[in-house]
Amino acid sequence: MNKRKIYLDYAATTSVDPLVFKAMLPYFREKYGNPGSLHKFGQEAIAALDKAREIIAKSIGANFNEIIFTGSATEASNLALRGIIKTLRIFDAGKIGKNQKYLIQNPRIIISAIEHESILETAKDLEQDGIEVIFIPVNKEGVVDLREIKKSLNDQTVLISVMYANNEIGVIEPISEIAKIISEFKKNKKQIYPLFHTDAVQAFQFLDCNVNNLGVDLMTLSAHKIYGPKGVGLLYAKGLKPLSNELARKGILFNNSFLKPIITGGGQEFGFRSGTENIPLIVGFARAIQLVGQKKLKELKRMRKIKDFFYKELRKAFSDVQIFNCYNTLPNIISVYFPGFSAQDVLIKLDQEGIEVSSGSACLMRAATKSHVLGALGFKNERILGNVRFSFGRYTKKDDIKELIKRLKKVLFN
Amino acid sequence: MNKRKIYLDYAATTSVDPLVFKAMLPYFREKYGNPGSLHKFGQEAIAALDKAREIIAKSIGANFNEIIFTGSATEASNLALRGIIKTLRIFDAGKIGKNQKYLIQNPRIIISAIEHESILETAKDLEQDGIEVIFIPVNKEGVVDLREIKKSLNDQTVLISVMYANNEIGVIEPISEIAKIISEFKKNKKQIYPLFHTDAVQAFQFLDCNVNNLGVDLMTLSAHKIYGPKGVGLLYAKGLKPLSNELARKGILFNNSFLKPIITGGGQEFGFRSGTENIPLIVGFARAIQLVGQKKLKELKRMRKIKDFFYKELRKAFSDVQIFNCYNTLPNIISVYFPGFSAQDVLIKLDQEGIEVSSGSACLMRAATKSHVLGALGFKNERILGNVRFSFGRYTKKDDIKELIKRLKKVLFN
Repeated sequence: MNKRKIYLDYAATTSVDPLVFKAMLPYFREKYGNPGSLHKFGQEAIAALDKAREIIAKSIGANFNEIIFTGSATEASNLALRGIIKTLRIFDAGKIGKNQKYLIQNPRIIISAIEHESILETAKDLEQDGIEVIFIPVNKEGVVDLREIKKSLNDQTVLISVMYANNEIGVIEPISEIAKIISEFKKNKKQIYPLFHTDAVQAFQFLDCNVNNLGVDLMTLSAHKIYGPKGVGLLYAKGLKPLSNELARKGILFNNSFLKPIITGGGQEFGFRSGTENIPLIVGFARAIQLVGQKKLKELKRMRKIKDFFYKELRKAFSDVQIFNCYNTLPNIISVYFPGFSAQDVLIKLDQEGIEVSSGSACLMRAATKSHVLGALGFKNERILGNVRFSFGRYTKKDDIKELIKRLKKVLFN
Repeated sequence: MNKRKIYLDYAATTSVDPLVFKAMLPYFREKYGNPGSLHKFGQEAIAALDKAREIIAKSIGANFNEIIFTGSATEASNLALRGIIKTLRIFDAGKIGKNQKYLIQNPRIIISAIEHESILETAKDLEQDGIEVIFIPVNKEGVVDLREIKKSLNDQTVLISVMYANNEIGVIEPISEIAKIISEFKKNKKQIYPLFHTDAVQAFQFLDCNVNNLGVDLMTLSAHKIYGPKGVGLLYAKGLKPLSNELARKGILFNNSFLKPIITGGGQEFGFRSGTENIPLIVGFARAIQLVGQKKLKELKRMRKIKDFFYKELRKAFSDVQIFNCYNTLPNIISVYFPGFSAQDVLIKLDQEGIEVSSGSACLMRAATKSHVLGALGFKNERILGNVRFSFGRYTKKDDIKELIKRLKKVLFN
């Protein structure tokens, strides 16, 4: 009785697309040079790196030198938050414990209450260092409160980070509206701060991620959520200027840069992220981004149809099912609660039936902590613990949804 | 006139071994689950991660939970230095600029003068934060001065970092002797600090890297220098206890851990390095380490013969050649100076002849800065700028050396 496996956890991770894999392949064993080497092998590696950076920059409307490759999206978001705060710190070297200062007296960071752990935990960590962190609530639909953002802005605010689309519930945030609020604030106050960062990891597949249209200063992307390899992410940073190791140590007053590296060494990635460049993964990342670009609109439509179909079939099959806001959300994520069933129950039983889904963030599963995202929506305990996230992807067909409904019935009615 | 290509820059990077690649392969497209997911796909990923960690831990005499996978060796070394300093910081949250303190009043880090940039630049960066950094000189042979280390130890010293074998000149440092000095100091002073870190990236292929034999508390390893993939490194950290996100924020007083994460988020890697685990690369890393273990002694002997042969042939062919200390160095690295020739000259000409070598660190090449390692040896400018590093590897044969000598003659005599 070997049932067809159906993977519906695309928001956790995806398989590497065959075309992406094909692009990566030569760089493992043939063109394996270190871009730091002067010889032809090294030059070949630099050329591949440059080409990947160019493809990606172009696809989001950025400049070549505004892309910093990292080891993960988590690292990219850490770089955004920590790297900005780091530029503000002034130390009297050798006099620690006496004279630590910030260029801005009481630096403030504003984040939404439903950020990914990579932002949330990093902000909380910076809070330990005396940075003020303001958490912006969301409404029942999961959308951040724009008036609260406006109210929270002050002349000490250095960064606002709001995710483009949420990984647990798929809700899409009004990024360009927030950008306008910030831009107006800066104009009025004649300030260069605050900078605006968005985590577009989940959004990239389906939404417009042109940084100029969005009006963001910083953006995090990941490869393994878009059929690229695990182990590579990037930070877009507007107007970034290459940094020497010496300048990187000095900070904003000296080099006019708003970012300092959090991983230092050989000075790769224009000085903003040291470590031998991971050519195979970076090449794969660029190919994955290209492929998403080619398929974006078509996939968006296809996915919407699948989601609609699932929505209707769910309602038909389970009269008391609770489905989270189906409209202002990504077309591939749908959050569902079957009253009386814990998520763990549903997950394990579906798993036995060959269907793989999640309760929310993969990161949360391991820590076995309760979702802060669902908490921010005002959900009650039972609803939080019962949340099942279905996330669809490139290989999901209407037939899979029919099977899903069939097996769900078996699992929940028996 | 297409001459056989001869790659002699193994110390910069290596190609992925076919067996390593074979081990990685299933995890790109078939077993691509996120280890954070509860379902079978996720469990399969966790199993692969656990197995890789076990293989590696065993191979260096460590425990399972003492291995932290990172995105590079550079990141691992940053984690060691920054993570340790971070545990010492106490902030009065909300009162920045007023009350920053360290648990130790004037924390000191001791490093050798010939460390890799990932240590050197990170230490210099921490210096900006008020940490005292002592640089230990080396003698003409490149060996650190043990008396200087002894003299530099004080009760404020939290970390000593000395690389096991140098990447530019191959010199092997007396790690276990340094460990004894530190251990004695701690015993006398009844202190838990200083901790001892070594960067064993270049040493791993040929030398004993059992952490107990070495007596180190922390050790950095890289995959792409040992025929594993780029984009994965690890930090060994003795006696590390898993850390929750909440505990990680609090630091040493609260959780009795000597390390705090520098990249925060989902709490992967026991809380010490967040970001989706890179299963394919980690599996490849473990396989690469296994293969090195199986071949270590045989390769050591083979490589020594090749180096000896090269040494003799060099002397025969070029009467005025200067060869750096051939004895207390790795068997695959040989640093050579041809008086009257700049490294760039030799490199470019050899490259045209199909032979790929480096002047020193690949990281340095790009920055076009002068080697601090050769400077620390007391070399004069001309010698520093003329240094050519030949580094041999698994595919280097005696015949390649014959060809090398032949082409070197052509390049230097014509």
